[in-house]
Amino acid sequence: MVYLASDNTSPVHPNILKALTTSTDHQKSYGYDDASAAAQALFARIFETDRLTFYPVFTGSAANSLALAALCRGSEGFVCHELSHVNQDECGMPELFSGAKAITIVNGRDKFTADELEQRIVYAINRGIHHVRPRAISITQCTELGTVYSLEEIHAITRIAKHYQLYVHMDGARFTNALVHLGCSAAAMTHLAGVDILSFGGTKNGGMFTEAVVVFEPTLQQSLPYLHKHVGQLASKQRYLSLQWHAFFAEDLWLHNARHANAMARLLAETLATLEHIDIIYPVQANEIFVRMSRERADYLHGCGHIFYDWGIVGADVYRFVTNYCTTAEEIQLFLKDVYNLSFG
Amino acid sequence: MVYLASDNTSPVHPNILKALTTSTDHQKSYGYDDASAAAQALFARIFETDRLTFYPVFTGSAANSLALAALCRGSEGFVCHELSHVNQDECGMPELFSGAKAITIVNGRDKFTADELEQRIVYAINRGIHHVRPRAISITQCTELGTVYSLEEIHAITRIAKHYQLYVHMDGARFTNALVHLGCSAAAMTHLAGVDILSFGGTKNGGMFTEAVVVFEPTLQQSLPYLHKHVGQLASKQRYLSLQWHAFFAEDLWLHNARHANAMARLLAETLATLEHIDIIYPVQANEIFVRMSRERADYLHGCGHIFYDWGIVGADVYRFVTNYCTTAEEIQLFLKDVYNLSFG
Amino acid sequence: MVYLASDNTSPVHPNILKALTTSTDHQKSYGYDDASAAAQALFARIFETDRLTFYPVFTGSAANSLALAALCRGSEGFVCHELSHVNQDECGMPELFSGAKAITIVNGRDKFTADELEQRIVYAINRGIHHVRPRAISITQCTELGTVYSLEEIHAITRIAKHYQLYVHMDGARFTNALVHLGCSAAAMTHLAGVDILSFGGTKNGGMFTEAVVVFEPTLQQSLPYLHKHVGQLASKQRYLSLQWHAFFAEDLWLHNARHANAMARLLAETLATLEHIDIIYPVQANEIFVRMSRERADYLHGCGHIFYDWGIVGADVYRFVTNYCTTAEEIQLFLKDVYNLSFG
Amino acid sequence: MVYLASDNTSPVHPNILKALTTSTDHQKSYGYDDASAAAQALFARIFETDRLTFYPVFTGSAANSLALAALCRGSEGFVCHELSHVNQDECGMPELFSGAKAITIVNGRDKFTADELEQRIVYAINRGIHHVRPRAISITQCTELGTVYSLEEIHAITRIAKHYQLYVHMDGARFTNALVHLGCSAAAMTHLAGVDILSFGGTKNGGMFTEAVVVFEPTLQQSLPYLHKHVGQLASKQRYLSLQWHAFFAEDLWLHNARHANAMARLLAETLATLEHIDIIYPVQANEIFVRMSRERADYLHGCGHIFYDWGIVGADVYRFVTNYCTTAEEIQLFLKDVYNLSFG
Repeated sequence: MVYLASDNTSPVHPNILKALTTSTDHQKSYGYDDASAAAQALFARIFETDRLTFYPVFTGSAANSLALAALCRGSEGFVCHELSHVNQDECGMPELFSGAKAITIVNGRDKFTADELEQRIVYAINRGIHHVRPRAISITQCTELGTVYSLEEIHAITRIAKHYQLYVHMDGARFTNALVHLGCSAAAMTHLAGVDILSFGGTKNGGMFTEAVVVFEPTLQQSLPYLHKHVGQLASKQRYLSLQWHAFFAEDLWLHNARHANAMARLLAETLATLEHIDIIYPVQANEIFVRMSRERADYLHGCGHIFYDWGIVGADVYRFVTNYCTTAEEIQLFLKDVYNLSFG
Repeated sequence: MVYLASDNTSPVHPNILKALTTSTDHQKSYGYDDASAAAQALFARIFETDRLTFYPVFTGSAANSLALAALCRGSEGFVCHELSHVNQDECGMPELFSGAKAITIVNGRDKFTADELEQRIVYAINRGIHHVRPRAISITQCTELGTVYSLEEIHAITRIAKHYQLYVHMDGARFTNALVHLGCSAAAMTHLAGVDILSFGGTKNGGMFTEAVVVFEPTLQQSLPYLHKHVGQLASKQRYLSLQWHAFFAEDLWLHNARHANAMARLLAETLATLEHIDIIYPVQANEIFVRMSRERADYLHGCGHIFYDWGIVGADVYRFVTNYCTTAEEIQLFLKDVYNLSFG
Repeated sequence: MVYLASDNTSPVHPNILKALTTSTDHQKSYGYDDASAAAQALFARIFETDRLTFYPVFTGSAANSLALAALCRGSEGFVCHELSHVNQDECGMPELFSGAKAITIVNGRDKFTADELEQRIVYAINRGIHHVRPRAISITQCTELGTVYSLEEIHAITRIAKHYQLYVHMDGARFTNALVHLGCSAAAMTHLAGVDILSFGGTKNGGMFTEAVVVFEPTLQQSLPYLHKHVGQLASKQRYLSLQWHAFFAEDLWLHNARHANAMARLLAETLATLEHIDIIYPVQANEIFVRMSRERADYLHGCGHIFYDWGIVGADVYRFVTNYCTTAEEIQLFLKDVYNLSFG
Repeated sequence: MVYLASDNTSPVHPNILKALTTSTDHQKSYGYDDASAAAQALFARIFETDRLTFYPVFTGSAANSLALAALCRGSEGFVCHELSHVNQDECGMPELFSGAKAITIVNGRDKFTADELEQRIVYAINRGIHHVRPRAISITQCTELGTVYSLEEIHAITRIAKHYQLYVHMDGARFTNALVHLGCSAAAMTHLAGVDILSFGGTKNGGMFTEAVVVFEPTLQQSLPYLHKHVGQLASKQRYLSLQWHAFFAEDLWLHNARHANAMARLLAETLATLEHIDIIYPVQANEIFVRMSRERADYLHGCGHIFYDWGIVGADVYRFVTNYCTTAEEIQLFLKDVYNLSFG
């Protein structure tokens, strides 16, 4: 039985658990503790800028929703891909926190282009007050289909956003998986590329409640502390969130974990690509593989005890395999053994 | 330097940290894990009923706000004490999550009576559609001023609530401190007393993110899972919230911690009560002491390095001392030594 | 210059203006006036049921948004057509008033079928708490593309809705245009067909602020009066809204106006249908005609002073002509004269 | 039977009804009509500034709520008097439209002073993120107790607001009654006194749906058109709102009506002041009189058929008499005749 359902089914990395045990004295609450101050310094180092502020939060959906709340409000909208997590998977949380409405780009693909974005913005603006006023865009890196926007693609998108005076949010639930794929710096993929605010996810990469909103745009700093509390994401004992980031960044754990997960996905994909009866339908650039195969084959694999989801939203007979930081090469082989049976049986 | 600022400045109890390390395998996310199932069983045992459901959340404010969201919505209101946490301290989170408005009882005291409640409800109803429609009441146990509603007082209040078909929420941020004071069962202080939904707080009592919404009223069960996600309080790795409750309930840690905190408050209060220049202004029934003393005296104690807050909302020259599960008798003596200087200096 | 932009560019019918002058004494405010009581009786007669309640409101968008607020709330959703007014044209008002999220059916057509509805509902339910919980559906009669759901289509849709315990809302901004097309009773098209709540629009049909929410489902009656006020749609001098309905229903003005508007659309469509360079792209069943023609032709007609909109949302080179209660046959001929030039020029 | 219940029980002034009949052609919808352009010019003239924009809305509560939505949002608050209409009488509409929370000043009087305002602001700021962030203040002119802030009082309040960078909203449901009492210009009582946004009410002064938000602060102009639609207050046939203002301003109807109403209140108050058993408890400066008298006396007057409300919110045995533009001196005498019976009977 191999777990390929989601990277959030993995246990917390021991280093992160260990970090939690290191704070044993009284500390001021609500973020005025030593660990949070140290984490702020770590973020500044990782992102190579003193102008950021980090706000630890509990979940990735909450990070996205808080970030969007900082960018837009009632009567306004955030442009996003139809399949984005903020539109599909958060049970209306972005709308609750912000009051704004999702303005979706529907294109049947994994990403949107700068041109598609501009068309959507122009359409919205032309509709005037009947349509919510676009105020922000949200891109997902990695995308919901396991692919990664290149730096060029991001720059092209943020250029359009700036032209129309829209803020740019990046949903980085799998930020590090994308980062190690691109091989660039965290700065290059974010503020240097025009990103104003980032949802930085660590939970799927070995963390516990290792999520943060990272604010690059200084004009957002005034409202964020209040919004952080307002939406229920400010911990009284914040140090226990901040400590997770200490461990995450120590000894490049974050990079190591993401590289491993990506490598396991590549390992799996390489073999799948040779099989006739399974089609990989998006480039495998991070730790997710989307395949098309018959329901009978999927049923067989489920029958073997393997855990993975169908992904009907992008078409019939589509399934998703997700690797994570503790997936082993042995597990991949174990899974592939059953896949072989399937294909050649 | 003694920390009497708040019980949330304390570190997490080692047993709770240890519990986090016990889950090392893959587990289904979003509450479908083994630890969450076991925690549900623990709650059923503690509250002596199978009809409850527990929803672990991250903060006490979020527990309150989620609970109120389950009870009321836009155009409706929840009746609460003017000084209640839901009205004063949560930066509009209850209103955000629920859409409802706080209907406050202003009486200059720590609690409200059943009579005051009824008057407020009747006034609201008589105002008709100009006033939000009362749908729920919220009581705080312990109150914001460190006192505890007796079972008789709770029954009298919930009787009025039921008469007007209002739901009853209990804000139990310091639930256990109240419970050990009353010496009754958790069932007696909640569902047997007419409470429909409870915010059960453990964070202030030695936990990390040890907060839960406990639902007794079965008709609320349908919307709660969605609301839990909607407001950003559903953890993907929920097991790491549930495990905290395992440790909290094991070997009566919750009761032991609360008894200790209350005992430390009594110890401190007993001496303070003998002093001329410090007045204890509310009965000390749990782990909080509210005193009136001159600003000069407070400044002196602050100057000694002791950490505590002024509590101007209930009057000039009022200060709060809070003990917690790891306050020691030595710390109390240390603090009292400076207090003696103060009084007799 | 002929106005075919929208039916809301027309002036108010003289009978409705005259009705406003008939109330000259003091009257109780907020709906407790004689004219509102009389209007309630009129609605009961028109819809052949005493079990309805009517709530006059100011705009059609507000009628829809208030109705949806009565049906669903935060964490929930209302299923609607992608092109529906509630999703496209109300600047987020349904979401604001209700807290709910639009669950859209995207099918590239004017209507959705019972099958499409069921698929969308089942998908939503299967997504569990990640997706908002479907609670209501909204159908538009006439549709946004000028077509009319048959009674059979409505029944099939409401059957699915009831099966999944969803409320049914009908957006009847052009209710009467649909009604006279079907030739059935108002009861048959609404509560007898499973509609729980109706936005009944009169403004586009000769009214001023002649809009109402009509509630058929008795369990909704308790919250509606409060919601009516809460969302800003309760007039202190409500009689001046109710009086508009008196005139609207007197001497069948509503039916006469809609029949005339529909007839003018047919008159225009009959000729357009014979032309080579203009394609009518949806059946003309009420008072709207959607055509495809080249931008040059549209520019020419605009250059002649005619007023109509492009309708890019359903495709390139699509334009909409709307007739209304005071469109004359002479105006149609005037417009057609320029259209002839265009086609054969 | 004399109507002293509220100024909104009066019928619409004939001039306003007549104005509605003057627009008989097709006009662009949603505010792009000739009457709205003309109304904008009228407002500029009345307020002696070209920098304002006016947004006609349907009700006074909606005007307030829209104005506050322009000033603040979720996590923020607006400071207002405990008894203000925005806090007491609008069923949560300000909170719905804005997302913000009312920050109330409780002082047992009709007005608040600049000092009380500053104390409340400082308290809020000192509470940090636990308290909503103050962003605006709202003053009511006339107050809810029929008194009028002097220009000096307004200036003192707005000076504090500006010092703390808060916007200033004026709830002018009875704007004109205050204006004629002060005898100053509309400009002097608003933008020249530091008011950023005004709810200008005409409905109580002879109008039908004669309410407007008037924006003086230019930075608010960008979001207002969207918010106007978003909250359901943009009329498709806006001309029929704008035309009411034409009549209202023509021949100084607004001033004449308010002067008359105020004069009738003075007439009534002069006699009441001479009576032993009725106490006028606030200065009569506009068209409202608040008295204290025994319940028996109130019952007697109600028994005579007179219509007025008790006003229990400010104390036992308090009643309110409101005159309006069509109250006659004969009605006052008729009422007084019964009052005489009462006092001397």
